[in-house]
Amino acid sequence: MSDLHTISLIPQFPLRRVGEELERLRASAPLVHCLTNEVVQSITANVLLALGASPAMIVAEAEVADFASMADALLINVGTLYPARLAVMQAAVVAANAADTPWVLDPVAAGVLAYRTDALHVLMQQKPAAIRGNASEIMCLAGEFASGKGVDSTAQSASAIAAAKRLAQQTGAIVVVTGEVDYVSDGEVTWAVPWGHVLMTYVVGTGCALSAVVAAFVAGASDRLAAVAAACAVMAIAGERAESACDGPGTFLPAFLDALYIMQPAMLKAADE
Amino acid sequence: MSDLHTISLIPQFPLRRVGEELERLRASAPLVHCLTNEVVQSITANVLLALGASPAMIVAEAEVADFASMADALLINVGTLYPARLAVMQAAVVAANAADTPWVLDPVAAGVLAYRTDALHVLMQQKPAAIRGNASEIMCLAGEFASGKGVDSTAQSASAIAAAKRLAQQTGAIVVVTGEVDYVSDGEVTWAVPWGHVLMTYVVGTGCALSAVVAAFVAGASDRLAAVAAACAVMAIAGERAESACDGPGTFLPAFLDALYIMQPAMLKAADE
Amino acid sequence: MSDLHTISLIPQFPLRRVGEELERLRASAPLVHCLTNEVVQSITANVLLALGASPAMIVAEAEVADFASMADALLINVGTLYPARLAVMQAAVVAANAADTPWVLDPVAAGVLAYRTDALHVLMQQKPAAIRGNASEIMCLAGEFASGKGVDSTAQSASAIAAAKRLAQQTGAIVVVTGEVDYVSDGEVTWAVPWGHVLMTYVVGTGCALSAVVAAFVAGASDRLAAVAAACAVMAIAGERAESACDGPGTFLPAFLDALYIMQPAMLKAADE
Repeated sequence: MSDLHTISLIPQFPLRRVGEELERLRASAPLVHCLTNEVVQSITANVLLALGASPAMIVAEAEVADFASMADALLINVGTLYPARLAVMQAAVVAANAADTPWVLDPVAAGVLAYRTDALHVLMQQKPAAIRGNASEIMCLAGEFASGKGVDSTAQSASAIAAAKRLAQQTGAIVVVTGEVDYVSDGEVTWAVPWGHVLMTYVVGTGCALSAVVAAFVAGASDRLAAVAAACAVMAIAGERAESACDGPGTFLPAFLDALYIMQPAMLKAADE
Repeated sequence: MSDLHTISLIPQFPLRRVGEELERLRASAPLVHCLTNEVVQSITANVLLALGASPAMIVAEAEVADFASMADALLINVGTLYPARLAVMQAAVVAANAADTPWVLDPVAAGVLAYRTDALHVLMQQKPAAIRGNASEIMCLAGEFASGKGVDSTAQSASAIAAAKRLAQQTGAIVVVTGEVDYVSDGEVTWAVPWGHVLMTYVVGTGCALSAVVAAFVAGASDRLAAVAAACAVMAIAGERAESACDGPGTFLPAFLDALYIMQPAMLKAADE
Repeated sequence: MSDLHTISLIPQFPLRRVGEELERLRASAPLVHCLTNEVVQSITANVLLALGASPAMIVAEAEVADFASMADALLINVGTLYPARLAVMQAAVVAANAADTPWVLDPVAAGVLAYRTDALHVLMQQKPAAIRGNASEIMCLAGEFASGKGVDSTAQSASAIAAAKRLAQQTGAIVVVTGEVDYVSDGEVTWAVPWGHVLMTYVVGTGCALSAVVAAFVAGASDRLAAVAAACAVMAIAGERAESACDGPGTFLPAFLDALYIMQPAMLKAADE
């Protein structure tokens, strides 16, 4: 789909802007309502806390509507979807939209199983502020046939750039396709976020936590495209730094959370100059 | 509410007593039944194991009644409450009371959302042995209006001392209000537990795990006030020690669990002398 | 039941075979569908990822049947069983058997509570490829009275060898009884896996994660007995290595995941010579 020539034309999101967006997030300390899967709740909360945001996992149908106007952003992640939790997610999305609270969709395993794929096709039409997935997931939501296993992850994220643009145009969301390089598009402008480390794929929940971080950055953002690209960049840069301070995926996670916590906006802003 | 003069009169719980209570816990290795929220189950279990207690997460309504008489204490934490789980909690509390098994209430986000606040007002009347919350939560259960964000955490816990005393008198529970300093009251006597480190607030579940540790110390205690104060002290001291051995919230958690595991009752008992 | 003389006759599973089985697992990167308890989902996924397998937690009844033919193995762990999740597990087992996908049973707390014990007696008749439990759990499933607390763990696993053999003959499963030494039996041949470290018992989920690793090794195995013994050996060896690189149970877990990640089949294969 996208060839190497096209990819090379996609500009890299500037570090200066990452620093500005991180500074904004730290100042606002957004409250992020996470409706996420059973496996990644702890890492998701710890990533948000380390970064300077405030996580809240509220799951009762009787509470999500009230909470939508308190939270600064909402995350919907369908990893371990089942009917009762899906009903809560749908209620939360309706309430978030009514309260003008931006929400982010993480379409885990879209296209793999019919139940969630159907649910995701409904959710994606309900005005998410951002959608964050891997190449297969984004291609599925954009209506493309997603190729299966065995594809190199760089090729994968690049192969979904056209799908990401189209999905952004269809839904009005900022769309992120993650891989060795992340691509972030609003349907017109597309940024590349090239940092990160493969070790992140050996720690469960780094992708899911990124979606929560996207929600944290989207909260109160005046430039959502930049906010989402900054979210990807912050996680990728922390991943690179953690990799240099660890011996494997076990020691990676503590080092990664430390790297998020100590990341300085001023250093990022100075890095481009 | 409480002024600085009043606070300065609250005595610090003695380290010698912390050591004695920890020695008792290690010797009895209490089995703690935890009905807690989705986010903190792993850290809760790991904290109990590191300390020398034995965690058990049993969640079926068909099992909680049978288990109440096997467990040495029960924890009820409403962080991710929903109707089916609330029904299990209510059954577990009734069974625990029938079996004379002490139980501890962690009223997460009391006052923030009506559904859980209503449920908590019912639960708090069912003879918990202890209630552990932050200032807002304790003030809500005591019937006070809880001020919102932006209040310094030291001020916060101190501002809820009167509420903690009143809640203890109303319910018969030992009440803990946690913050930079923790206050532990039976309605008559109040102890201050001044250790700890702010880094603990950047790790999800340290407060929830403290409530589980309160349950572990309350199990078999002849002096419940001392047991609860010792629980707070052990966690706070481990937090201080972990802080000196870490680079941020990521490396804090492993160091914190190590500190709980290696903490020596004899050293604590000797520290006051 | 088994005396020391009998135990001393049980041969140790050879390291060379551990290396061969690990090499096979790394080459196939099996997709392991985990229906496990609420407490250990994160460690289970991280252990599988570190080892080179691919975890998937799919919990909707509408999805488990479809997923059974995609996954290379299925894990059923009843730690936090409740009716809705049990129904999903039963559907997943039926689908796995129909698709010839091997599945592994972890009978957490069998014999302690009637609800799960009844459920486990049904599940164990549905042709699990392997069953992994501690001495009490295996003895319960084999129809023996399991002695309670206070028994040394070495004695415990040894005391259940006869039960493990009988349960293997009854069910056709490879049966593992874990403890300071693990015993793995197909009802005829029994192997001992003697490595490991007691610190593993202070980290929640190491036993549950082992059951997931058993599932990963059983996937595509031509020799299931060897595959299951290799799973136990890999975890035990990583436990020993992690112990020498940590200060307590907190720093153990990161070191343990690192040890799984860097474990070299070639080194294991050379170790016996």
